[in-house]
Amino acid sequence: MAGRIANEKFLTKVTDIETIVKMVKDGDKIGVSGFTGAGYPKAFPVALAAQIKAAHERGEQFMVSLFTGASTAPELDGELAGVDGLKFRTPYQGDPVLRGKINDGTTYYSDIHLSHLHNQIAYGFFGKLDWAVIEVAGITAEGELIPSSSVGLNRTYLERADKIVLEVNQWQTEDLFGLHDVYYGTEAMPPNRQPIPITAAGDLIGQKTLKVDFDKIVGIVMTDAADRNSPFKPLDDDSRAIAGHLIDFFTTEIKAGRLPKNLFPLQSGVGNIANAVLEGLLESDFEHMTSYTEVIQDGMISLIDAGKVDVASATSFSLSPDAAEHINNNAAKYRGKMVLRPQDISNNPEVIRRLGVISCNGMIEADIYGNVNSTHICGTRMMNGIGGSGDFTRNASISCFVSPSIAKNGDISAIVPMVSHHDHTEHDVSVIITEQGLADLRGLAPRQRSRVIIEKCAHPDYKDILLDYVAQAERVSKAMQTPHDLTQCLSFHQRFNETGSMKIK
Amino acid sequence: MAGRIANEKFLTKVTDIETIVKMVKDGDKIGVSGFTGAGYPKAFPVALAAQIKAAHERGEQFMVSLFTGASTAPELDGELAGVDGLKFRTPYQGDPVLRGKINDGTTYYSDIHLSHLHNQIAYGFFGKLDWAVIEVAGITAEGELIPSSSVGLNRTYLERADKIVLEVNQWQTEDLFGLHDVYYGTEAMPPNRQPIPITAAGDLIGQKTLKVDFDKIVGIVMTDAADRNSPFKPLDDDSRAIAGHLIDFFTTEIKAGRLPKNLFPLQSGVGNIANAVLEGLLESDFEHMTSYTEVIQDGMISLIDAGKVDVASATSFSLSPDAAEHINNNAAKYRGKMVLRPQDISNNPEVIRRLGVISCNGMIEADIYGNVNSTHICGTRMMNGIGGSGDFTRNASISCFVSPSIAKNGDISAIVPMVSHHDHTEHDVSVIITEQGLADLRGLAPRQRSRVIIEKCAHPDYKDILLDYVAQAERVSKAMQTPHDLTQCLSFHQRFNETGSMKIK
Repeated sequence: MAGRIANEKFLTKVTDIETIVKMVKDGDKIGVSGFTGAGYPKAFPVALAAQIKAAHERGEQFMVSLFTGASTAPELDGELAGVDGLKFRTPYQGDPVLRGKINDGTTYYSDIHLSHLHNQIAYGFFGKLDWAVIEVAGITAEGELIPSSSVGLNRTYLERADKIVLEVNQWQTEDLFGLHDVYYGTEAMPPNRQPIPITAAGDLIGQKTLKVDFDKIVGIVMTDAADRNSPFKPLDDDSRAIAGHLIDFFTTEIKAGRLPKNLFPLQSGVGNIANAVLEGLLESDFEHMTSYTEVIQDGMISLIDAGKVDVASATSFSLSPDAAEHINNNAAKYRGKMVLRPQDISNNPEVIRRLGVISCNGMIEADIYGNVNSTHICGTRMMNGIGGSGDFTRNASISCFVSPSIAKNGDISAIVPMVSHHDHTEHDVSVIITEQGLADLRGLAPRQRSRVIIEKCAHPDYKDILLDYVAQAERVSKAMQTPHDLTQCLSFHQRFNETGSMKIK
Repeated sequence: MAGRIANEKFLTKVTDIETIVKMVKDGDKIGVSGFTGAGYPKAFPVALAAQIKAAHERGEQFMVSLFTGASTAPELDGELAGVDGLKFRTPYQGDPVLRGKINDGTTYYSDIHLSHLHNQIAYGFFGKLDWAVIEVAGITAEGELIPSSSVGLNRTYLERADKIVLEVNQWQTEDLFGLHDVYYGTEAMPPNRQPIPITAAGDLIGQKTLKVDFDKIVGIVMTDAADRNSPFKPLDDDSRAIAGHLIDFFTTEIKAGRLPKNLFPLQSGVGNIANAVLEGLLESDFEHMTSYTEVIQDGMISLIDAGKVDVASATSFSLSPDAAEHINNNAAKYRGKMVLRPQDISNNPEVIRRLGVISCNGMIEADIYGNVNSTHICGTRMMNGIGGSGDFTRNASISCFVSPSIAKNGDISAIVPMVSHHDHTEHDVSVIITEQGLADLRGLAPRQRSRVIIEKCAHPDYKDILLDYVAQAERVSKAMQTPHDLTQCLSFHQRFNETGSMKIK
């Protein structure tokens, strides 16, 4: 314990989690660490869930509002949702139990851009935060905090919550020290804000540790528990094809003089497909690449290890168990090659636009005019959330969306007449890629886009009914800028709801 | 002439417009000055339209691609569209003739964020530009250009086009010199871009003039013609009510400590309602306000003259004839109180977010979950375009949309179950205001938003059918995050298409 808490004063705050959670009340607003299953508190949520369950069994009302970096883990979102303990949740989630509670109406979910939540809290959109519950890898002799495997909104919550709980997780290696860059400039409010001085992906502009107001610390608990690290699916044919189309596109752009040989910094969304695209880049000829992205996944570590990527900036790890063990044993050797920042910096429009980041994110569906749905199945059912995809897409030099062209054995087409929920509009999407091909939408008007998207990206099983829709829409539409038949534009989704397939039987 | 062209070398380039337009060819890509009817070339488009018309009469193909700052005027967009001369148009328009050609399919129109076009051209999305045709107020002894009443994308076009045409318009006052701030930093491409060093609305970071490569100048023509300046509608009851709701909201926010007494810098969209809101602020108690916006309209000049606004930053004027005459006679006295910048700076996400700009834009319709349609009537017919509304909305501290709650004598409701076209998503909209009231959506999940929007903003004639839709959607929806009945969500628009009214007869 003393090894992880190098400041004696802080040792006096060490206590047990039950003592702490007894102070949590119905309606409290709790900001916790955690981003894509990395660096979330391991003890507090489970203890709080038990207390909420007991309260409910006594017939008492007890629900809290939960703020995180992004998604967390079964022992956080899952536990609290499982006891109907979450009244409100923001900004992102990916837990099956919580997803159920959101979609059955138990939990109000505000799905917002990950770079925006810092400002929205700072500007007072959510009122005062009661708690900050933050996992750290250690406490320095100077009384500052060594972040663990994610930074997320830890700075924001520590600066603003009334009460602070620290979980010192001994599973996290102390060698993470030096991989973080905590910038405090965005804590200033207008008119006192200055430019964020990042001009290259690896620039260090902050400090290695998080500050903490000792007097606000309610308790410190020791934990020793692994992050929720899930294995990635192996590279399949679809992912390999998508990565191939992207590499071909980059190669063409370099030849045309529109991209430098080492590309612009890459952003890659969270999940299997995005990771597979990174794995695919291992087989490319590009060298000295950099990454300005949200999470460091297995594929990025492979690219760094292979010497293809010089430096990667993110806010969190998102690793398989094997890769997590590798990082835990080798963190020190990645100093200078990786940097974890607060998420309002990792995802900041200012920096993304300045660096010319190329974004690449997964999607649920795209429509024939290039609008993208990242969040809702058939317009109503929340899957995960928009996450950082909007932060990057809107500000990227080239914004790509990737998906296999079909899902559910072909009953769902990723290309539809009109998306059933709009997260990214026609104004923001440059490139759409499926295993079928790549649609380059740059500089095209809507009616030009519809031809290219269907030709290049739609699955053969859906090409004809999509072209039929285009013909029908252009026949009945009152105008030709964005032709639609309003009685048929959502017919793919209506058919799926009614028959279980978007295909016409 | 010599007075306006202070460099003798440039005098040798003066010629007549017919000589110049003879060099334009079918398929040429032409970047012209002009933003909301200010500072567009007056001679070139009319002469080009005549030449295109003559070519068509000879049975020859002749269409061009036209790039501007934003909307222009009848003698530019109207003339060229009127002779079927526009194959492609970007990034914004507001001309009735061109609107017709876009909606009948003659002209391909790429409707994009105004801050994005500089980068999209610089990154090569549209290929090489053939022409830059730029109106200026004069040419300095040093051979640089004094911009006229807008800056727009003049720097971008001058830097990149093969051939340059200058129109020296003697109607524009030379006293505009000193009101412009032309920043060249965003001409650098990644990885060589630096932070944009604006930390307050009035900061001057560039130069007063535009650079020009003398050798690329094909010709200089002298003109003497007024901008297309249209009178604003007088303040009506709806606009006064909307302005009142906004002032009440600001007052509450200041009392709650969420806004400083002089607010954050204001952005105000283009047009009558936005101008009316500014006029409304004349009657507020706020002082020492600033503005970081896109255009300076009459209302902003009134606020500056009244000493309520200290400084306004924009890319263009957009004035009534009376206000234009006032500026032409008094431009010098506004130095230090107004600054016109390139539109990739006036609308830049980096600066908007840093300054905490409060955005306020008009809309066609909003839906019950806070999505906004700024562009398409009934999902298909282009009205004008997204303009800068996305640049500001996505990055503002508080993003407001305003509209009267009904249009066309009540046959159209501005609040609908699902917008028929999505330009701003639920993730981006903080506040919706109609004459009925103000819906504060900050921190709310979709089902919370639907109640507030209908209660505060919908017209009484539509409240019941909107609430009926909510009940129906929540009954049939497969999930409760964003309940929708996909067979009914566009029923308001379908009914309007069929019966001429969104009301149920």
